Amino acid sequence: MEIAVALFDQVTALDAIGPYEVLQRLPDAEVRFVGHRKGEIRTDNGFLGLSVDRTFDEVPDPDILLVPGGIGTRALVHDAAILEWIRAAHETSQFTTSVCTGSLLLAAAGILDGLSATTHFSSRHLLAKYGAKPSEDRVVVEGKIITAAGVSSGIDMALHLAERLTDATTAKALQLMIEYDPQPPHDAGALHKVDATVLARVQELAKLRN
Amino acid sequence: MEIAVALFDQVTALDAIGPYEVLQRLPDAEVRFVGHRKGEIRTDNGFLGLSVDRTFDEVPDPDILLVPGGIGTRALVHDAAILEWIRAAHETSQFTTSVCTGSLLLAAAGILDGLSATTHFSSRHLLAKYGAKPSEDRVVVEGKIITAAGVSSGIDMALHLAERLTDATTAKALQLMIEYDPQPPHDAGALHKVDATVLARVQELAKLRN
Repeated sequence: MEIAVALFDQVTALDAIGPYEVLQRLPDAEVRFVGHRKGEIRTDNGFLGLSVDRTFDEVPDPDILLVPGGIGTRALVHDAAILEWIRAAHETSQFTTSVCTGSLLLAAAGILDGLSATTHFSSRHLLAKYGAKPSEDRVVVEGKIITAAGVSSGIDMALHLAERLTDATTAKALQLMIEYDPQPPHDAGALHKVDATVLARVQELAKLRN
Repeated sequence: MEIAVALFDQVTALDAIGPYEVLQRLPDAEVRFVGHRKGEIRTDNGFLGLSVDRTFDEVPDPDILLVPGGIGTRALVHDAAILEWIRAAHETSQFTTSVCTGSLLLAAAGILDGLSATTHFSSRHLLAKYGAKPSEDRVVVEGKIITAAGVSSGIDMALHLAERLTDATTAKALQLMIEYDPQPPHDAGALHKVDATVLARVQELAKLRN
């Protein structure tokens, strides 16, 4: 089972690495990190380098397609190479998936027309612009397309996907292997769970990195 | 604030990337990925390449030290270079942290003697061997040392740490920015939450990748 994870400059690392850490443990998984050119790309803030091992051309028909998000997607919604790759790979994929603003690339590629999809809470309005129906759910399944909300939600999406690919026992085993027994100190992980003070802090912090 | 994340061959990517994705958003964070030599290392299964940007020598006194785990730690508990670096960096660090079997390296460096610490559920017995007191908690705080359990627990650890470094409002803002509102399909992320069938599957899956 070939799993293609798209990488590009200014990707959000956890969007890609969360699902990868679940899916790479499937018995027959071969994970390929693919991009425009082989070599290093840097994450949204530039702090981390990740390796592109295959070009899009070299992985034309993966079984699973995973498109992460990040600031880099702002330019890529106009990038013919990645959009063409998504469109073509989706034709034969078993599942086509995204995390965070990765769904904007699925939408820009035209494969979310009229379908429900999710993304990072700050970008929901953009999904509609590209013809999708924005959802506030953490994981949205539309046939073989699965989109996940912001950043960390890719872990939940991957556990759902793993269960569809195998069975509940395997999905539980994968969850235990990564000890995904979340205990965040606060219950503040969704927009409707925070107050205006927290939202103002989000805006301050986001400004520093954009 | 300089945050040093150790990288090495056969690291578990999410151990490092989970906390990185939280801490990189702190206003004054400068995250450095450090290792024996600059250049690419490969994760536990070899599927992913991550870049080491600085050598241990170049980052002798980070404010925050983060040591991830992975199969690679099995060799590194005997590696003088990384153990010396941990020992020396810990002398001046504001916080010294680990995720998963990264705590075995802290223990092997001698900085967990007699202290409570946690690690991946499968490696708790090894912590005792190096003089630490194994805990089943997800996040264990001993003064300025914070250890986290397996793989995904680094996200919770980083949120705790972020709050200590700043305030609750900022920690909540960081949690929202990565939309950490976990909704795993099952409640199977800790050893005591699964049955023998799931445990047997974990052993089968682990064998394939080790």
